This record gives sequence, structure tokens and C-alpha cells, in this order.
Amino acid sequence: MSLPKHNQYFQLGGKDIWSLINETAAASEKASGTPVVNLGQGFFSYSPPDFAIEGANTALASAAANQYSPTRGRSSLLQALAATYSPRYGKQLDPNRDILVTTGANEGMLSAFFGFVEPGDEVIVFEPFFDQYISNIEIPGGKVVYVQLHPPANFDRETISGKDWKIDFAELEAAISPKTKMIVVNTPHNPVGKVFTREELLRIGELAVKHNFVILSDEVYENLYYTPEFTRIATLSPEIARLTLTVGSAGKSFAATGWRIGWLIGNPDLLAYASMAHTRICFSSPSPLQEAVATAITASLKNDYYATTKAQYVAKYEILNAVWEELGLPYTKAEGGYFTLVNFKKVFANIPADYAYPAEFASKPRDFKLAYWLIKEFGVVAIPPSEFYIEEHKSVIEDCLRFAVCKDDSMLEEAVKRLRGLSKYL
Amino acid sequence: MSLPKHNQYFQLGGKDIWSLINETAAASEKASGTPVVNLGQGFFSYSPPDFAIEGANTALASAAANQYSPTRGRSSLLQALAATYSPRYGKQLDPNRDILVTTGANEGMLSAFFGFVEPGDEVIVFEPFFDQYISNIEIPGGKVVYVQLHPPANFDRETISGKDWKIDFAELEAAISPKTKMIVVNTPHNPVGKVFTREELLRIGELAVKHNFVILSDEVYENLYYTPEFTRIATLSPEIARLTLTVGSAGKSFAATGWRIGWLIGNPDLLAYASMAHTRICFSSPSPLQEAVATAITASLKNDYYATTKAQYVAKYEILNAVWEELGLPYTKAEGGYFTLVNFKKVFANIPADYAYPAEFASKPRDFKLAYWLIKEFGVVAIPPSEFYIEEHKSVIEDCLRFAVCKDDSMLEEAVKRLRGLSKYL
Repeated sequence: MSLPKHNQYFQLGGKDIWSLINETAAASEKASGTPVVNLGQGFFSYSPPDFAIEGANTALASAAANQYSPTRGRSSLLQALAATYSPRYGKQLDPNRDILVTTGANEGMLSAFFGFVEPGDEVIVFEPFFDQYISNIEIPGGKVVYVQLHPPANFDRETISGKDWKIDFAELEAAISPKTKMIVVNTPHNPVGKVFTREELLRIGELAVKHNFVILSDEVYENLYYTPEFTRIATLSPEIARLTLTVGSAGKSFAATGWRIGWLIGNPDLLAYASMAHTRICFSSPSPLQEAVATAITASLKNDYYATTKAQYVAKYEILNAVWEELGLPYTKAEGGYFTLVNFKKVFANIPADYAYPAEFASKPRDFKLAYWLIKEFGVVAIPPSEFYIEEHKSVIEDCLRFAVCKDDSMLEEAVKRLRGLSKYL
Repeated sequence: MSLPKHNQYFQLGGKDIWSLINETAAASEKASGTPVVNLGQGFFSYSPPDFAIEGANTALASAAANQYSPTRGRSSLLQALAATYSPRYGKQLDPNRDILVTTGANEGMLSAFFGFVEPGDEVIVFEPFFDQYISNIEIPGGKVVYVQLHPPANFDRETISGKDWKIDFAELEAAISPKTKMIVVNTPHNPVGKVFTREELLRIGELAVKHNFVILSDEVYENLYYTPEFTRIATLSPEIARLTLTVGSAGKSFAATGWRIGWLIGNPDLLAYASMAHTRICFSSPSPLQEAVATAITASLKNDYYATTKAQYVAKYEILNAVWEELGLPYTKAEGGYFTLVNFKKVFANIPADYAYPAEFASKPRDFKLAYWLIKEFGVVAIPPSEFYIEEHKSVIEDCLRFAVCKDDSMLEEAVKRLRGLSKYL
């Protein structure tokens, strides 16, 4: 007798990219006996700052901080977020109305999609996209409408900047329909490292106002921008703010991707629906870690943590990017975030055509083969970014790999040492 | 201009019961200047055991335990769960195939529903039910089919036992249709305190096998049963096990409801779909708290924690239930879990008919009024259980209140002292 039928939305065989790459890296490490240098998934190789860990330890010692939190978030964290963001938004935020604590930024975005998307509604997403967006839009029945960020024609030959990835606004306008319910903006952008300009965000915001759709602004890398200015779309006008929910993440800002604490900030009339969805999805978010984040962001109002961290990331990029310069491999210099896209076209041309790839990689675009080959031959882990494109656009990016720099300097230096070996393939 | 339309599933005004009661209690406490005794929501008034807290502190000191976990769960926790449950199931569980770690039991159940329920599918739920089941089934488009647990006719006059709440199997069979995709079983049961018998579970299991639907067995109170035996439906036959996913919770077992660590155990062919849904809902669960739970359940394999805790709960029930005996209020003696249902019919008859209830309570069944009155007049918080019934069945329970005993003995003693004042209303 066969088992009861599963939900058609979930098909086996589609292992998520993070599990595929991490499991391949672990297996390779085991087979070779040599640790890999994992610059793949954007987790940190080091601990959250001491003041954050101490906040967690203190919370764990309190009975109440180990029990359910209010579904909107713990008072301490809501207050700390209001104190952090009020100056950033140039207005006083109400901790009880303008903010929702979520179980990671991911569940925050899912809650926002659930709050607004009904079957048949359309959501505009820029391509390349973070893979979770797509399933999170499709689960409540939404249809994703893709608008590409276009790299310049020479990006396979020359090093460019995140800002060179451009929106074609005619394409964006053509993507809008009466069914458009939301648009997802991600700045600083993963994986291209673009910090959207004020002008770009204003044009997007004006389109949202004109056509009355919600802007979901994923700003999880907000504390890591290397441009003189970082613009928040919600600050551009009251009309735009009224339509915007902004996503933040403690994991990205405090090197704590495993804590699963994020938040949504925005118009309380929109937030109310995301909040209702959040209550039903996770009920509430991990209490001692909410307290720890409250402690960490309160401390960061007074210390120089964000500035120091940003300076460290500039230095980390310098360590890693030196090897691309040395090898003459073109890459995208990030304006924000902690990823670099590197073009391996020249390398791929010199990998033996009969190289043995496992089925899960052989059936996929070239960047999957490159990622597998780099793990096996060099012990360096990167992410194939064609996973962030729909089928018909994967060729745009399939010569590239995405490298994360949120790693100890010594790891980045070891990666550079290993990657120098690529010169044999150039 | 009006805002973009929200998802019709989420309607404002329907504040969840936990937020309503906790916020009312907090406001009353503030107004009166006297702390309430909160026996409402099932959170603990005390801390998790020291060995669990130490596990969390140790994890926080490790860089890796602060970063993303594998979506299926951390190896340490999967191993510890396999070691705990293999003897309970009488077979060796495979930590990599038979178990999924989730962000609380709630998100585990949501993942199971998402994995199987498509629009129009039916899910059978026993009434009274835990409120989150309903929205979690309806969000993916499922239809809930309700089957009542019937109390004996005298339950408003005499104290009964959890086991006296009975399934009418003719009603259960009549509820099954070709669209039945799942059934939810909850044992020990919240709020009636019933531990389902082997015979009852076998009949449910045989119906699932006959009609080929999934059994989602919510066993989050599995370590708190006061009957000689606790039967797990998945152990009754290989045919039943094949259709069963069982839900567990670290929060309930280790007094850590704010940690948000739960799990699903069962047939890996079913679990695969829940796992895919979980990946898309929360991506992964809080890492340091997974490590802490791994430490706690490993320690509990060797120490007498579960037995000691159970004995403590027997004593806690004795403290609280003494006041019902003293007052002559009929209640349901729990066979498991940490709740008591108490019938306040006699009390309600003596509350002034013109007592001033706020709108959120006045518009609801009598038990909401009772709950409000008890908070205001006695400073004791309980939950109105009609929230766990559909509209047309609320009258079954609207004279009752649900009290939680997962509180310090001194709190229970203070509650008893205050509740003695009810004698004026009898």
C-alpha cells in the first residue's frame, strides 16, 4: 500500500543548496583527511562578541528568560531595537507597534509573505535572489515575477563593482501587473554585493506607491556597507514608508547565524498581519537569545562594535580579493555584505572534460561542477550562484562562484594559499 | 489610498488566547499593585535543570554552536534523541533518517501539516484541541473535521478522571472521508489530562491503516504521565508505525518553553516531506539551545530527572487540587500533563449579573468572563477552555477554567490561599 500523498509543493530530490554543499564538503574532508576551508554558506567561523555571549549567559540564569516570550517579542529587545532604529529612521519608533521579533530573518520574511500573499498574487523578486524567497512566496500560493539585475557585458573579463549590476526600469515596470502584491528588495545585496542607490530605491518606492504594493526590504547586511552612504527605502517618503516592511537579522550583525533572531520593522498596519502569521508559524522566538540580542544591540549603541566590524570586513575582503587579482580572475567588488562573486570561466576551460562529477553536480550548470571540483581538488568551499537564478537565466552566472569572507583571517589566508594553485589551470 | 489587501486567512481582532490572558493579567497586576498568580499559560515559573543550563553555557562558548545548524538538526541532538527513543520504541532509531529537529513542537506540527495537507484535504482533530492545530491545518488549505472527546454527564457535579473523557468511535468513523489526510492525537491530552489507552490508540491506528491516513501524535507531555503505563501509538504495529509521525518537545520536558526546540520522529518516508517544509519555514533551529537539549537528554539517560520530575508533579497536583476538594468544585483529575480542568458553574451563578467585563471578554462565552473575574477579584490567572472548542460546542466547557501546575509550590500554595475566597460565591 502506498503512503498518503504528500503536498505537491514538496518534491524529493531537490536538496537545498546549503545542505548539498555542506554535506559534500564534510564528505570530502572525511575522505581526504584534510579540513576544507569553508567559504560557502554565510556562517561565521568565529564566535559572537563577548558582550553578546555574556547577555545569553545572564538570560539563561533567569527563570523567566527561559520561558515563552510574547509573540511580538520580549520587551527588552523591542526597546533596544526602537533605540537602535529610531535615529536610523529619523523618527521615534514605538516598540509595541512598529516592530515584530521573528525566529530569524527567514521566518520574518515568510510571515510577511503569509500575511499578504494569496493564491495568484504576484511578488516581484530581483534576480539573482536568495533561494528561500522563492519557496516562501510559493508556499502561500504566490507567483514570483523575476526582474534581473544586469551585470555589465564585460563582467566575465574585468573586475567590476556591486553598483555595476543595474536594474532596467523598463523591465521592472513591465513586470508590474494588477496582481502585484509585493516586491522584495535586498540591500546590501546577496550575492552581488550591490548597495542600492538612493535614486534606485526612490524609483522602486515610487512604483510601489503608484501601483500600491508592499515593499519587503531585506536589509540583513545593513551594518556591513562599504559605501559612504546606506539608504533605507523606508526613509525616502512617508508614502513609501507606509508600504514598507524592513527585515533585520541579529545573526548577520552579531556573528550568530544559529541564534535565529530577526525582526520586521514598519507600518504597524502592515506589521499586524505579519505578526498574526508569525504567531501561527512559530508562536514566539527563542527567549534567552532574544535577551542576548537585546544586550548586544544595547551595548552596540555605546561601543564601536559596528564600526570595528565594518573595518574588519574591509580587511577580510582585501585578504581574499588579493588572490583574484594575483590570478587575474575577474570578480565583483562588494559594496556591502560579506560575499564576493568570482568569474571562473578561464579555469573551467582547463578542467578535464572527463572529470568525474557525482550525479547531483553533473546534471547541473557549470558552476556546480566548479564548486565540486574546487572542494575536491583544492579543499575550498564556495557556492554555485546559478541556484539564485531561474532555469532560463542560469547561463548568466554559471561561470561564477560565490565566496564568503565572514571567516577568521587565518582561514582566508589558508584559502588564498590553496587558491594560488589555480594558476595551473589558467 | 487603502493599503494592499492582506491574506484573507489573517483577520485582525482575533487576538490569540495566550496574548489576551497574559496582557490582561499584566494590566491587572499593574492596576492593583499586587502580583497575580499566573496558572494560565503552561510556562514554568522556575528554571530548567542546572545540567541543561550548563549545556547551554558550554555551547555558547563554542564558535560553531552559535552558527547555522543542519536543517535536520545538530548531530549531538539527533544522537541523543536516538539513544533516548530507541528503547522507548523498542527498535534502533537512525539519527540521520528517523528524526527531525524543529523550532519547537509547534513548528514541527506545522511542518508535518505543510508536508501533507493540500487545499481541500481533511484533518481529524479531537475536541477540545490545542488552538494552534487549527490555524496550522488551515494555513496550507486543510479543512479541520472535529470529533469530540465526551466527558461523562456528571462532570459538572462530580470530580472525574482524564480517562472518563471518551471517544465515540462511531463518530470517529463517520468523520473519516476519502479526503481524510491526517488525524491529530494528543496524549497526554491538553487540557483534559487524558492518557489515551492502548485499546483506544489501537482502534485509531487501525482506522488510519484501513483508510490510509497519517497519524500526527502530539506527545509533548510524554514524560509526565501518572498512569501505570503510557502507550505510544507508533509502537502498536509496523503498519501503524509506517503512518505515524510523533511530536516531542524539550520545552515541556525540561521546563524550557522559551527555548523552541522540538522534534518529529517517525517513518523516514513521511519525515522527508516534513523536513522539506521545515527547511523552508525556519531553515534551521537555534543551535546553542539544540546543544543544550542534547546535553540535557543525554544526562537524563543516566540520572533520575524524569522520575523525580514526575513525582514533583504528583505533589503539585495535590497542592492545587486540595482547594477544589475543600470548596466542593468538581474537576478532572489529570492522568498526565500539567493542567486541571475545574468546573466553576456554581461560582458563576453567584457573580453579579452586572459585573463589568471589558468588550474582549463580554462578547465571549462564560468561561472568558470567569477568567477575567478571577484575575480581577482574586489575582489568579486561568485559561478559558472554550477557546479549544468550535463555536457550536463551546457550551460543553464554558463553565470550566484550565489551571496549570507547572509552577513553584509556593505559587500553588498562594493560589490555594486566594482561591479559598471563592467560598463566598458558593
